[in-house]
Amino acid sequence: MSDTPDSVVRTYIERHRAAFLDDLVAWLRIPSVSAQPEHADDVRRSAEWLAAKLSETGFPVAEIWPTPGAPAVFAEWPSGDPDAPTVLVYGHHDVQPAAREDGWHSDPFEPLLTDGRLYARGAADDKGQVFFHTLGVRAHLAATGRTAPAVNLKLIVEGEEESGSPHFRALVEEHAGRLAADAVIVSDTGMWSETTPTVCTGMRGVADCEITFHGPDQDIHSGSFGGAVPNPAAVAARIVAALHDEDERVTVPGFYDGVTPLTEAEREIIAELPFDEAAWLRTAKSHGTLGEAGFSTLERVWARPTAEVNGIGGGYQGPGGKTIVPASAMVKLSFRLVDGQDPDKIERAVTDWVAAQVPAGIRHEIVFGAATRPCLTPLDHPALQSVARSMSRAFDGHRIRFTREGGSGPAADLQDVLGAPVLFLGISVPSDGWHAPDEKVELELLLKGVETTAHLWGDMAETMR
Amino acid sequence: MSDTPDSVVRTYIERHRAAFLDDLVAWLRIPSVSAQPEHADDVRRSAEWLAAKLSETGFPVAEIWPTPGAPAVFAEWPSGDPDAPTVLVYGHHDVQPAAREDGWHSDPFEPLLTDGRLYARGAADDKGQVFFHTLGVRAHLAATGRTAPAVNLKLIVEGEEESGSPHFRALVEEHAGRLAADAVIVSDTGMWSETTPTVCTGMRGVADCEITFHGPDQDIHSGSFGGAVPNPAAVAARIVAALHDEDERVTVPGFYDGVTPLTEAEREIIAELPFDEAAWLRTAKSHGTLGEAGFSTLERVWARPTAEVNGIGGGYQGPGGKTIVPASAMVKLSFRLVDGQDPDKIERAVTDWVAAQVPAGIRHEIVFGAATRPCLTPLDHPALQSVARSMSRAFDGHRIRFTREGGSGPAADLQDVLGAPVLFLGISVPSDGWHAPDEKVELELLLKGVETTAHLWGDMAETMR
Ligand SMILES: [Zn+2]
Ligand SMILES: [Zn+2]
Repeated sequence: MSDTPDSVVRTYIERHRAAFLDDLVAWLRIPSVSAQPEHADDVRRSAEWLAAKLSETGFPVAEIWPTPGAPAVFAEWPSGDPDAPTVLVYGHHDVQPAAREDGWHSDPFEPLLTDGRLYARGAADDKGQVFFHTLGVRAHLAATGRTAPAVNLKLIVEGEEESGSPHFRALVEEHAGRLAADAVIVSDTGMWSETTPTVCTGMRGVADCEITFHGPDQDIHSGSFGGAVPNPAAVAARIVAALHDEDERVTVPGFYDGVTPLTEAEREIIAELPFDEAAWLRTAKSHGTLGEAGFSTLERVWARPTAEVNGIGGGYQGPGGKTIVPASAMVKLSFRLVDGQDPDKIERAVTDWVAAQVPAGIRHEIVFGAATRPCLTPLDHPALQSVARSMSRAFDGHRIRFTREGGSGPAADLQDVLGAPVLFLGISVPSDGWHAPDEKVELELLLKGVETTAHLWGDMAETMR
Repeated sequence: MSDTPDSVVRTYIERHRAAFLDDLVAWLRIPSVSAQPEHADDVRRSAEWLAAKLSETGFPVAEIWPTPGAPAVFAEWPSGDPDAPTVLVYGHHDVQPAAREDGWHSDPFEPLLTDGRLYARGAADDKGQVFFHTLGVRAHLAATGRTAPAVNLKLIVEGEEESGSPHFRALVEEHAGRLAADAVIVSDTGMWSETTPTVCTGMRGVADCEITFHGPDQDIHSGSFGGAVPNPAAVAARIVAALHDEDERVTVPGFYDGVTPLTEAEREIIAELPFDEAAWLRTAKSHGTLGEAGFSTLERVWARPTAEVNGIGGGYQGPGGKTIVPASAMVKLSFRLVDGQDPDKIERAVTDWVAAQVPAGIRHEIVFGAATRPCLTPLDHPALQSVARSMSRAFDGHRIRFTREGGSGPAADLQDVLGAPVLFLGISVPSDGWHAPDEKVELELLLKGVETTAHLWGDMAETMR
């Protein structure tokens, strides 16, 4: 047996695997639930535990960064090579709430190792996927004989992702200099399946608004006045209905302006994925598909902008009937955005479009939340090729395919503020049960994550030089 | 001065006016609020008080009719003339809730007589308008020298009108024989204004439904799934939006089938009313008019069928945003119906129309409430002419105009079960504040109500013989 770099990495991982898992289990025992104030101390404890562990791993810099909410952890390990690229890894150390009563088969904060799986809240989302970087960088050093990584390696591990990252953008802006990087690796996503390793190449952006419509000064009798005055609930419904045309395309003028179209190559890559509509519908807990004409389900959720009504309300919603014209109604809309769309322009277009449709006698207000920009790494980007190549080595030469994420995340803040391309490296699979009872991570995949990063820093140092 | 029947009536009323008002004040002191269980005894006391007063007035029959809820009062005074027509008067002795804190300037159950007005809960709706029949029938006897009315006079005064008359139809069905009549006079409406005495000739019917739409089995993430599965809130909105076309006509196929059109004469009668749109909008607490093209505001609310959304709800309605595709949504719709429309047919048409529009992947249920039929008395009906003529005599020869009511009421049950035409006799005016603080009745108009009924029974006996 030849002593290839790959076999050195594997041997190193095999030798340190038990200690690595013991450490991860210790971290998973800390219930760092950012959404529950009673766990604020645990979230702090989780940050301190991680910072200490990163120091122990060898990171010369490992700091707690306070925010007005839960603290983040920042760590840095300079390459020593003046030409080395800088890579920033993103993850989070807070977790979703979890309680035995929610349907867990074991205590969510007492990790259970069984049948090649590690069950615990945060096992996959996101402590497991943050933690594989610790063993990964050590394996990288062992295989290359280096004393520092081939890239300037930085980690930012926030503590409020599961609460919507309310202070993350400000934190990134505050520390933009120290976070500066040539590429960002987001370690908080998954891959297609156990047998189809993939790299995610982008996430959609999102803009959302609430529109309130005011009609009569109070609910009025629909017998006496209905059919002769504008009804704000009908206006709300008409706006929602008018959002899409018969092809389920968004009708807001200018909505599709600038949208980067899917190339034929990208469409082929998506079409080649082993998509099972019945299985997808089970995951979506839905009973049919409906979307923009001319696009597949995956294209619709990954690569096309959409408009969705998240909530609507007006008038009487209690039991039985009440014959009124309601005083007011409201709708909550969200717009998923793709590469080439600017949230500011979308917000202006929606504002104008709504105003043009409100009839005389109805007053309305529109309020937008904080928008998130889309991010997309071109398939031919060198860093993306590095990630795919390193992952392929970890997955025994398996072909790595490319996916996208339909959702939106704080990765976009890193892209915006740091001006760096964002890449996604995750080994979690759909069955891992993020945010659900019995969250787990597959041990074999977790170690393939370690192995991928053990190859990645050397590859990126070569490719991005 | 000649001793005309009209002057005899006036003299009689003048002589008994003080006692009549004392009695009415005593009745108004009983807080017969049917919607508040703590007033159940008061509603019973109100029924007993009225039955005793009707006996004292001379009605040979005056009974309390129990229901599973509040009791009604039935009274009967046969004419003695075998050819006399039978007239049934409808009213109610229960009242809306009222409390000083709601903005009353005096105690709602301590009647205040000032400036020619009587302020009290129930003064106009409906105790005052029931009570004018007691003095009216006595004045009729005095003026004609009769010992029994010229018509077989029956009264049914229910105790749950302000609670939606939940047991009224069953009561009418149970006692259909004793309630049988050639015409029904509803004494629970109003007239156009102090200076424009009017007779109402019909009310609209109403059918209402709640439709629930089910999409995903639970709220799902709109980033991961939105734009690719049907959204039940969007479906609900689309149904509401599709209910009307650009002319604000209802699009449900067959909705207008059989609708009795407004004649040119009826349109002229409506057009001649001194309608002030600004004043009407103030009453409607609305800021614009909108309705079926080709019809005026009064025609829209009185004589045209309509569809109204009374409530809509689905998804997230709390503060801020939540990017979900909601699991379900619901709409509450009501349809006002006019002469010629059958609620059963409308319900079937709506059911079919909704079903045809729900996309695959969305399950829906539609539940209808109890419908009320429309009622309309033709302008040339002899009983209507009697009412108008008697009212004109009471109003110093003033021309009596005709109106309709946009709302729906238990009068339709009397029409349906008894098969008798329904007429409306009311002297209340819009400023009387039904269901509002400071409800009052104008004393002069109240006495004109007495005077109208004093003429009415003789006129009807002649006309309907
Ligand atoms: Zn996560
Ligand atoms: Zn009433």
